[in-house]
Amino acid sequence: MQEEYFDTNYLEDDLEKIKELLQARKYTQLKELFAQTNEADVAAIFEELNEKELPLVFRLLGKEEAAEVFAFMEHDTQTTLVNSMTDKELEQILDDLFLDDTVDMIEEMPANVVARILRHTDPKTRKQINELLKYPKDSAGSMMTVEYVNIKKNMTVGEAITRIRKMASDSETVYTVYVTENRKLIGLVTVKDLLISQDEERIEDIMETNIITLSTSDDQEDVAKMFNKYGFLAFPVVDKEDRLVGIITVDDAMEVLQDENTEDITRMAAITSAEDTYFKTSIFKHAKNRIAWLLVLMLSSTLTGTILTSYEKAFAAVPLLVSFIPMLMDTGGNCGAQSSTLIIRGIALDEIVFKDIFKVIFKEFGVSILVGSILAVVNGIRIYIMYRSAQLAIVVACSLAMTVILAKFIGGVLPLTAKKMGLDPALMASPLITTVVDTCSILVYFKIATAFFNL
Amino acid sequence: MQEEYFDTNYLEDDLEKIKELLQARKYTQLKELFAQTNEADVAAIFEELNEKELPLVFRLLGKEEAAEVFAFMEHDTQTTLVNSMTDKELEQILDDLFLDDTVDMIEEMPANVVARILRHTDPKTRKQINELLKYPKDSAGSMMTVEYVNIKKNMTVGEAITRIRKMASDSETVYTVYVTENRKLIGLVTVKDLLISQDEERIEDIMETNIITLSTSDDQEDVAKMFNKYGFLAFPVVDKEDRLVGIITVDDAMEVLQDENTEDITRMAAITSAEDTYFKTSIFKHAKNRIAWLLVLMLSSTLTGTILTSYEKAFAAVPLLVSFIPMLMDTGGNCGAQSSTLIIRGIALDEIVFKDIFKVIFKEFGVSILVGSILAVVNGIRIYIMYRSAQLAIVVACSLAMTVILAKFIGGVLPLTAKKMGLDPALMASPLITTVVDTCSILVYFKIATAFFNL
Repeated sequence: MQEEYFDTNYLEDDLEKIKELLQARKYTQLKELFAQTNEADVAAIFEELNEKELPLVFRLLGKEEAAEVFAFMEHDTQTTLVNSMTDKELEQILDDLFLDDTVDMIEEMPANVVARILRHTDPKTRKQINELLKYPKDSAGSMMTVEYVNIKKNMTVGEAITRIRKMASDSETVYTVYVTENRKLIGLVTVKDLLISQDEERIEDIMETNIITLSTSDDQEDVAKMFNKYGFLAFPVVDKEDRLVGIITVDDAMEVLQDENTEDITRMAAITSAEDTYFKTSIFKHAKNRIAWLLVLMLSSTLTGTILTSYEKAFAAVPLLVSFIPMLMDTGGNCGAQSSTLIIRGIALDEIVFKDIFKVIFKEFGVSILVGSILAVVNGIRIYIMYRSAQLAIVVACSLAMTVILAKFIGGVLPLTAKKMGLDPALMASPLITTVVDTCSILVYFKIATAFFNL
Repeated sequence: MQEEYFDTNYLEDDLEKIKELLQARKYTQLKELFAQTNEADVAAIFEELNEKELPLVFRLLGKEEAAEVFAFMEHDTQTTLVNSMTDKELEQILDDLFLDDTVDMIEEMPANVVARILRHTDPKTRKQINELLKYPKDSAGSMMTVEYVNIKKNMTVGEAITRIRKMASDSETVYTVYVTENRKLIGLVTVKDLLISQDEERIEDIMETNIITLSTSDDQEDVAKMFNKYGFLAFPVVDKEDRLVGIITVDDAMEVLQDENTEDITRMAAITSAEDTYFKTSIFKHAKNRIAWLLVLMLSSTLTGTILTSYEKAFAAVPLLVSFIPMLMDTGGNCGAQSSTLIIRGIALDEIVFKDIFKVIFKEFGVSILVGSILAVVNGIRIYIMYRSAQLAIVVACSLAMTVILAKFIGGVLPLTAKKMGLDPALMASPLITTVVDTCSILVYFKIATAFFNL
């Protein structure tokens, strides 16, 4: 089954094999196995080893392979490894790591480990790391690397290729090279362009001068969107004076895209976003991430309860009224959640902005008329069949239709309003919408019921 | 404000300028403007033009620019354009489009337009298009392009570079080239590797032979995950006999990643996934996408109502009991939604698999003990203060704690069970969980209440 390839089964086979070889001290075979396995897979396998095995197998990796595997590892495994390394080993790894990976790692490590790392990098690199660490954690500045290839506009294509060949091994990407003048970015050339051109042509004649740049302060989410929109392999990052300060490559953007989606999805379920995977987050941390919103929502929903108490006489007279409360609350909640989810996603993908609010209201109103009618009719018929009371059927059907209209209105408007107020629209997802819609629907229901039954 | 850059404001300025220039028939200035603007942006602007303006401005684009802009457009805009093109213009565009973009477009267009497109492609391309169209819509086969560079193992680095230079303009990516023998994929080389090597070296000595390949039948979601995991710029796609049939590039994977996330998010809100953006989907289509689940959930939640009816006497005796129903239902729903969302996301990211089910149950149980106690205590105190009834406070607090434990158990287990049964775990998100949890929580509540109050 293809499926298995994508989950952990094939990984476990490798893991068992490695543990066996390790126990039998067959280091040569282990080395061969690692050499044949992609670095991302080696890193995934290493995650499963214990603290004793890990440094042992890590030392079996080739010099450059070691740095690549290291970059793919989770931050806590990296910390374990760094603690087990000699100073010389640490220097070696740091030398081979790309700067953006080093910075990523440093941002997540305990202070004493960071101090040791900084002590063992050469002064030039240390300066660069410190520069990168100054940028806010979710900014383009902290995502970028300074290891790019820059060329001059008066070079020929041939000279540029020679320079790329020289710098290739130390650069994260060589496929886009940047033309600078007094540190300012004035153009860019892709290797594809260079290959299509003749050796004698001048860079300034073939370079692209309409450059789309990112700024160091751009939010990482917007950075990811830019990659998605333009389909580039890398973006140059410039400072306020338009000087080229680094580049961001597509692999980092893809990771951010996935993280941001996870953040949105969990936030929409009223969870404070977690940094770690589900299993790596402790029970205590899980509880902490979930309790705040639960408390807020629980206390808000007591408002609905209070409204109910004021209609005590109504349901004392017609007790059957109570039995429709769950159906009304659930349907209202679901309708609101559908609308708010679509709007929140639309905002995240830049398809919906605040000034579209009336278009949204119009659309949601149309949808709620259609959906509300169908639900009301189906439910009305069911009630009439079950209880033979046309009055009851009409009251519930009307309340339901009103609830749907209200829910879709609130679900459409709240996320846009939140965005306008500078809040994350994802906070306006189902849980909050449900609580708001509940109160409204119960009010509508009992207003209609008391009027109809003369209670 | 940087924010503006990412929404539609800057686009609107351009749009106005273009409309002005168009009215004044200043075509030379328009041409210049387009030449200075990135193709993705030109496409975004063109989306906003009407059916008369669109063909007019499109003809102002340079030959290659036109194909690139065309590839960035929405499918219905593409259809409009194709309908306005002469046969010669159509042939030109098709000639410059990459095959995967052509196939993407064909998959979404009306049959008569597709027929016209196929009539105007050369026989060789038509054959390739028909081959690609045979693959299921969401498979690696339908994502891939056949325009890659292949080389032979006995070539030298210099010869390989010469071949790349010759094929560069017709290939979607040149940065990874594939070594084939009797059409079988036997190795790959990146341009970076070529640049680092000497001209005389043989390809077979420098090529990577441990290749991670995709199969034509792989699901696009898994394809996107592979890019995310390995950070590659392209993957080779092979058929069942290991023959190289195409490649998939990272830009296409990124698009899929975003689409799949949207699909998950909307499905989690009980919406049948839409292909189009919010505004491009008609009111009728919106209603259709939402009504099915609403009906199912509405009818299921009447079960909770029926349970309520059987406790009519209980809330006739203690009417206050009714007022805690919304709070219990909402909190249960929210707790369940939190758990199911985390599990669904974990499954989507391959972090959680079915055999982790006991680990999940254990973790969720721990969390629900912590969260449930806090919520129960807070609520118990509130009720005691408001109503001075220790009995009532205890009944509601116990019911709440039980509801939280139940909700987190159901929320944790249902998505994993769904996955095991071959269903999409996203279907087990908040709406369904809420309905299930509601029934349980109301049952628990009235069981406890009737026992405590001797009703």
